[in-house]
Amino acid sequence: MSLQLRSLVRPTGELELSLVDVAMPEPGPEEVLVRMEAAPINPSDLGLLFGAADMGTAKFSGSKEKPVVTATVPGKFMKAMAGRLDQSMPVGNEGAGVVIKAGSSPAAQALMGKTVAVIGGATYAQHKCVKAVTCFPLPEGTAPAEGASCFVNPLTALGMVETMKREGHSALLHTAAASNLGQMLNRICLKDGIALVNVVRKKEQEDLLRGAGAKHVVNSSSPAFLAELTDALAATRATIAFDATGGGRLAGQILGCMETAVNRTAKEYSRYGSTTHKQVYIYGRLDTGATEFNNNFGMAWGLGGWLLTPFLQKIGQADAQKLRQRVAAELKTTFASRYAKTVSLAEALQPEALAAYGRRSTGEKYLINPNK
Amino acid sequence: MSLQLRSLVRPTGELELSLVDVAMPEPGPEEVLVRMEAAPINPSDLGLLFGAADMGTAKFSGSKEKPVVTATVPGKFMKAMAGRLDQSMPVGNEGAGVVIKAGSSPAAQALMGKTVAVIGGATYAQHKCVKAVTCFPLPEGTAPAEGASCFVNPLTALGMVETMKREGHSALLHTAAASNLGQMLNRICLKDGIALVNVVRKKEQEDLLRGAGAKHVVNSSSPAFLAELTDALAATRATIAFDATGGGRLAGQILGCMETAVNRTAKEYSRYGSTTHKQVYIYGRLDTGATEFNNNFGMAWGLGGWLLTPFLQKIGQADAQKLRQRVAAELKTTFASRYAKTVSLAEALQPEALAAYGRRSTGEKYLINPNK
Repeated sequence: MSLQLRSLVRPTGELELSLVDVAMPEPGPEEVLVRMEAAPINPSDLGLLFGAADMGTAKFSGSKEKPVVTATVPGKFMKAMAGRLDQSMPVGNEGAGVVIKAGSSPAAQALMGKTVAVIGGATYAQHKCVKAVTCFPLPEGTAPAEGASCFVNPLTALGMVETMKREGHSALLHTAAASNLGQMLNRICLKDGIALVNVVRKKEQEDLLRGAGAKHVVNSSSPAFLAELTDALAATRATIAFDATGGGRLAGQILGCMETAVNRTAKEYSRYGSTTHKQVYIYGRLDTGATEFNNNFGMAWGLGGWLLTPFLQKIGQADAQKLRQRVAAELKTTFASRYAKTVSLAEALQPEALAAYGRRSTGEKYLINPNK
Repeated sequence: MSLQLRSLVRPTGELELSLVDVAMPEPGPEEVLVRMEAAPINPSDLGLLFGAADMGTAKFSGSKEKPVVTATVPGKFMKAMAGRLDQSMPVGNEGAGVVIKAGSSPAAQALMGKTVAVIGGATYAQHKCVKAVTCFPLPEGTAPAEGASCFVNPLTALGMVETMKREGHSALLHTAAASNLGQMLNRICLKDGIALVNVVRKKEQEDLLRGAGAKHVVNSSSPAFLAELTDALAATRATIAFDATGGGRLAGQILGCMETAVNRTAKEYSRYGSTTHKQVYIYGRLDTGATEFNNNFGMAWGLGGWLLTPFLQKIGQADAQKLRQRVAAELKTTFASRYAKTVSLAEALQPEALAAYGRRSTGEKYLINPNK
């Protein structure tokens, strides 16, 4: 048998997280069986894990080895849960482990005994079967924990830079910039000579990024935030932003400050605002409240969702592969992740762990070792 | 001498509208002199005309022939006025008139005596010099009033349909749909067999559009608005919208209802919402309040500004010319405009006229005849 973490939303509005025993999966000819040893809890995992439940209502039961967490989904969010009701869903976007059994194909056989990174769901599990071609063999001497976050954060950070270039911008802005992802993006930009405006909320996050070499760090808690943001945007000429917060006024403030920055060098009055296109992509929802803005940025603007998978599909297989190769080459430097704690599957469902990673706070990233 | 309507914002925060005598313009070799006989007051003219002034503060002075209107620009909007301070600006995007003098070039000479439509500013004037090649000669038997709105509304309506096609959508939604522009769009869609969802605010606007053959008309004042909107979106599969209101919750509601409509036919649960891209373009600001939305539409969405001139530049000269040719061919049918009233330049600055067209209400479109 093999343990798997599952998330279930019942039609009654109850979320249930539990560990389920499943039969040991058997790899097909083209597949390998991976013993999972490291899987990060990314913000992007929490949507599936918690559903729309209010985790303040969480109740803990079950045994130490088989804990059960229940919580209530507020009625107004049940409509959004319609597609997943009564389905016990495995969780975990990515992770790494060791290939302990391989299918008969040469591609599968070649991975036997290797440490590989995997993506595609159900990584919060002791074992996972995956197609050999989708595995990402880690360089010799890489521990599973070092390769656990090979896909989501590194490719998202590279995807932001790539989107900036493809859409004709020359510098970018990032919010929640002290996150693991933000630190990665800062390292990429420093290495590639790209100007980056880092927006953070706290003094210690400012210090962290400046200590890591960031040149433009703006603190949204500063009383002079908008003026400082405008200065940084004028200095970098950043006209595209990636926003992890989503709710609130930040996205609109960024567009407004971009417009002011662009107009500082404008030659004549343009009645519809500057003709420079200003773009904000929302890729996260740290603030789940309403998004609100007053348009003081003319007509040349866009706001939209940004998601890794459609981006990779859009750029195509060959270009996506180039990004992956860069991740492999710089896994222990540019793309290194840091975790606050490593927990077992059962520990991940304990009150203190759940409260910690549920906060989505900078510096509280958790790693699950399903075979701990 | 020749009269011109001017808009001036002073650094003290005072808007002044007045009629100014200018020297009769003299056409260069490639130019023609047009005696303007019809120029519409489009919503897109009001931004330049009123600046950011609060027209509730309007004061009227001057003489009957040379009225002067003053109003106060609220302090918080003065920053946006920085680019136009102390500049006496001519107003009016488009219009039509008769060529009364022509430059020496054959192109200019060929237009002598012709009725032409013009675009490019300063049409609220008795005379205007324009390059002959930018004139749009109206078909024989067309009065200036019939050709006054040849550019902005017709090309905007066609531009919406063209944007829909180019961005891979097959049906569209339009708000403030009973406007002159909306009625035009409805006629285009009926003629071309394109499904259109018309969103209006009043019963009489509903009746007007249904009377004109519109199949999908949704009234935002209906208690069941969101359900009715979703039904119309599901029936048409519209995934792109053009919104004239801008402020408020409407844009977000449209995205949310599109998502619900798309998910009605979804096969399996998608954790980040549907993968169908949903787009709302804001092209007007009938509601100048804050724009607000709660994201209940996943990650595949965009919201942005849409403006005619950059659109025409993007599609290029040849394709833009095709759109213009269609306008000429269907000027008295598909692209016919209706006006509540025709006024002189001086009458346009009288309290009752200003109040009427300033309301931006459906059915209150004004036409200026500068030589009335």
